[in-house]
Amino acid sequence: MHNPKIAILLIDCPDRKGIVAAIVNFLVERYDVNILHADQHQDVEMGLFFMRVEFATDAAGFTEAAFRAAFGPIARDFQMNWRIEFADAAQNVALFVSQYLHCLADLLQRHQAGEFRCNLALIVSNHEAARPLAEFHKVPFHYLPVTRDNKPKVESAQLALLAKHKIDVVVLARYMQILSPKFVEAYPRRIINVHHSFLPAFTGARPYHAAFERGVKLIGATSHYVTETLDEGPIIEQDVTRISQNDQLLSLIQKGRDLERMVLSRAVQWHLDHRILSYANKTVIFA
Amino acid sequence: MHNPKIAILLIDCPDRKGIVAAIVNFLVERYDVNILHADQHQDVEMGLFFMRVEFATDAAGFTEAAFRAAFGPIARDFQMNWRIEFADAAQNVALFVSQYLHCLADLLQRHQAGEFRCNLALIVSNHEAARPLAEFHKVPFHYLPVTRDNKPKVESAQLALLAKHKIDVVVLARYMQILSPKFVEAYPRRIINVHHSFLPAFTGARPYHAAFERGVKLIGATSHYVTETLDEGPIIEQDVTRISQNDQLLSLIQKGRDLERMVLSRAVQWHLDHRILSYANKTVIFA
Amino acid sequence: MHNPKIAILLIDCPDRKGIVAAIVNFLVERYDVNILHADQHQDVEMGLFFMRVEFATDAAGFTEAAFRAAFGPIARDFQMNWRIEFADAAQNVALFVSQYLHCLADLLQRHQAGEFRCNLALIVSNHEAARPLAEFHKVPFHYLPVTRDNKPKVESAQLALLAKHKIDVVVLARYMQILSPKFVEAYPRRIINVHHSFLPAFTGARPYHAAFERGVKLIGATSHYVTETLDEGPIIEQDVTRISQNDQLLSLIQKGRDLERMVLSRAVQWHLDHRILSYANKTVIFA
Amino acid sequence: MHNPKIAILLIDCPDRKGIVAAIVNFLVERYDVNILHADQHQDVEMGLFFMRVEFATDAAGFTEAAFRAAFGPIARDFQMNWRIEFADAAQNVALFVSQYLHCLADLLQRHQAGEFRCNLALIVSNHEAARPLAEFHKVPFHYLPVTRDNKPKVESAQLALLAKHKIDVVVLARYMQILSPKFVEAYPRRIINVHHSFLPAFTGARPYHAAFERGVKLIGATSHYVTETLDEGPIIEQDVTRISQNDQLLSLIQKGRDLERMVLSRAVQWHLDHRILSYANKTVIFA
Repeated sequence: MHNPKIAILLIDCPDRKGIVAAIVNFLVERYDVNILHADQHQDVEMGLFFMRVEFATDAAGFTEAAFRAAFGPIARDFQMNWRIEFADAAQNVALFVSQYLHCLADLLQRHQAGEFRCNLALIVSNHEAARPLAEFHKVPFHYLPVTRDNKPKVESAQLALLAKHKIDVVVLARYMQILSPKFVEAYPRRIINVHHSFLPAFTGARPYHAAFERGVKLIGATSHYVTETLDEGPIIEQDVTRISQNDQLLSLIQKGRDLERMVLSRAVQWHLDHRILSYANKTVIFA
Repeated sequence: MHNPKIAILLIDCPDRKGIVAAIVNFLVERYDVNILHADQHQDVEMGLFFMRVEFATDAAGFTEAAFRAAFGPIARDFQMNWRIEFADAAQNVALFVSQYLHCLADLLQRHQAGEFRCNLALIVSNHEAARPLAEFHKVPFHYLPVTRDNKPKVESAQLALLAKHKIDVVVLARYMQILSPKFVEAYPRRIINVHHSFLPAFTGARPYHAAFERGVKLIGATSHYVTETLDEGPIIEQDVTRISQNDQLLSLIQKGRDLERMVLSRAVQWHLDHRILSYANKTVIFA
Repeated sequence: MHNPKIAILLIDCPDRKGIVAAIVNFLVERYDVNILHADQHQDVEMGLFFMRVEFATDAAGFTEAAFRAAFGPIARDFQMNWRIEFADAAQNVALFVSQYLHCLADLLQRHQAGEFRCNLALIVSNHEAARPLAEFHKVPFHYLPVTRDNKPKVESAQLALLAKHKIDVVVLARYMQILSPKFVEAYPRRIINVHHSFLPAFTGARPYHAAFERGVKLIGATSHYVTETLDEGPIIEQDVTRISQNDQLLSLIQKGRDLERMVLSRAVQWHLDHRILSYANKTVIFA
Repeated sequence: MHNPKIAILLIDCPDRKGIVAAIVNFLVERYDVNILHADQHQDVEMGLFFMRVEFATDAAGFTEAAFRAAFGPIARDFQMNWRIEFADAAQNVALFVSQYLHCLADLLQRHQAGEFRCNLALIVSNHEAARPLAEFHKVPFHYLPVTRDNKPKVESAQLALLAKHKIDVVVLARYMQILSPKFVEAYPRRIINVHHSFLPAFTGARPYHAAFERGVKLIGATSHYVTETLDEGPIIEQDVTRISQNDQLLSLIQKGRDLERMVLSRAVQWHLDHRILSYANKTVIFA
């Protein structure tokens, strides 16, 4: 192998003496790898340990299967949740969108500029609005309108599409339909949503209206993993911007769009780079 | 009068054609004043108009009484709420504090640096912690400990102190006691509190703990006028700062202290400069 | 006329007693207009006064010509620089771009989302990279490659295009060619550039490299009017974002792109809304 | 030893395979320590590696001398610059100040609130203004006025004071005198200054005036290590705040004070916690 592949090892386990040494020794002694980055984190209150190691797999005879077999006993010994990812394995991404296209347009433009290493496999929408943008960027577009009655059927069609395209992560780029628990369970910590408020403030519908009513001086946006409970999943990123009395509802919505773009694109990038560890409804970001 | 006094005229009324002209003409024709600043704002949805005019009262024979008498008919005609303030009239301020002294220390230091034009008339606390600081800054200190049983009595003593010192505005600089409706009603829109969260997120007690639990990526602080309902008064100022997993609860609290200082000091300054108009649980800040 | 046109009156002049009253009285008495917004500013040091008045021209018989004739004497009396603009008069905008398309894509997307009231008349580039984006958004694309030798000729062609399309404002959306004084003089305070640093730090070429070398902890971007002296024109907007040692040059450039988009789009919006007054190499923003 | 001491190992060296493993193995195998935090950084362009390891020295028989002797060969092997610090060893800090007291007051207040683990050994000033504050906080105050003629003599007296009190770090909390190269060399990377601009913009005197003249939209402040060349030392922290045309010079200076406080206090905290590695006129902050 001439170009060494970059592997990313992600671990969380109960905190205990000797974890770092065990991992580092395994990588260095067993595989003679070059550790490129190593980040760790402890949650002192919960007694948990988290680690992300990026290393070059240039050792002769490195194979994922052999690695898994060899690392297994260590992982068991320390009660680790762990996974290994490879930087050159482009993930398959599905983008869901409704009528507001600013987040979608932003993600597509960033992808074109080379910011995301992934395969934009398909765009799913309950509206036709995004079709021209999808066609311009040559991403297959699936129009699946949702009515009061057909929702379970549409979700089945969506899940079939995701399965067919081996989708790794679903990005809800202002998709204004609530996903069923069944859908969410099929992609745990693999559905990223953007909510147009600074969570936990203003959950639910029309958060900009609620923020305007309350008279806040900053508005925000939040990207998070989707869980069963609406707007309560682990937060990935948040940002805010200042508003004043000069911002009527419309300008507040316009300013918010910029926040939505930013927090969603950062979440997508970190997820694609395997920089997020999620636990206990929180995230650790190794950025 | 050689040094013209600066007057500040504050108005809110139903929005309607001709308001600006009526006010400007009154000031210029009747009093020949020099308008130094004029700011206005419309709440389009509610159909309300707000104005703040700063002017030099150098006209021969300007008196507050004559101004009030002359402006009355115009005010009635436009259904105005209005008041006139004078920049050289130092307001009497009472600072309430409990055990955390960072906001108090900050306000005292700013006052010493000349940032606030006011008379720091007294410091009230349910703890002795602030006494040395009060003495250093030569502000009379009143220790009024609060127990489960003596709260109404203490509030009466506090109100008596405020009345005796002709207090214009009460600043709760991390005063950890909830004021009774009776107390609040005595100083409508004249009690400024700092809450250590980004309202409306994390109302009530221990907001930093709640923010830590929820896994937010930014923490905030809010200064607001105190109303009958806890943490629900009109917001004056808010700010946030970024946190990460590296911030355990203690560092989060420490970072929050800086936010509290900033949002409270800005609120105090704007209030003292008569830059805040409050309506419908919102504030207009003519900053 | 059934839908009243919105007019915007912009004034700067030496500061002097009675200006506000003179303007307001003229508008109200002569034209019986409804003043929608009025903002003013004084530069105390330079003794200058600035005003922006937005008003509804619903008076019977309002014409621009009559207004100009009537306002002339007042303007002369107060030595005003002034202009009147109309909100419904869509301005003609030319976008100049080179190879980096992120600012262009952002402006086009915002235009499509209805954020800018203007006519995107043409895109000019010294590269072919932007052609597909131009075609997707149906904006005429002009490819005018620049070499060491043909620069004056290209500029003449560009100026001819601008004249032919009656261009009001030129937006340099990462156009990497320096404009000649002759070009700049043809569009005074009507060419908007984005520079990828926090001016006046890191003027000239490769500012991200310079920022990286210097080890700054925040990077910035600046939008400004182009003047004869490179990177020294009046600043319209600036923003910064935090970086750390984890940001190698590439991620620094990527983070910077988001800043460039933001500061350029805000400058374009404010310019189109006639919210910018420029004087003495500064800008007043009535936002 | 019942309460394990926390040690902090700081390393920089040429980047090379096996560094992390060598360090971790040394700590774990030789000393059986519990690694509490480990942060590393690579400067890819310069080929440098940086590490900060925080560990509990609870091994029986841990001594600094033995550690130094044992780690020496590894350090030589990897050409490391390294040092070991102990969290419980309170450093001696000297605060230098002139007439503006806001930074000094802020540092003293934070120290009182327990934010800094250090011994505030003395305050040195060329003015008497800080004496009451020093006395209130019970920090010895040394008044050493500087004239055109006595500067070398004063510096000698200052250096004698620093030596006598075994000062580890000098904090220039708005000390408005330029230190001689001789002074700076005596405390390499151990003198922290705050400059009231966003460096490298507006070096030298009166940066707020220069920022006001230039018409910037954000003002900044910078904390940095002092080197021979004025305002050019490695930057530790920077921050900015938004200004507008409403900010005349005085309010700009007032807003700047808050920035100065923030960036200086963060620099002091990081320095005291041994979180800063400095190289090539840059800093790595392991925050």
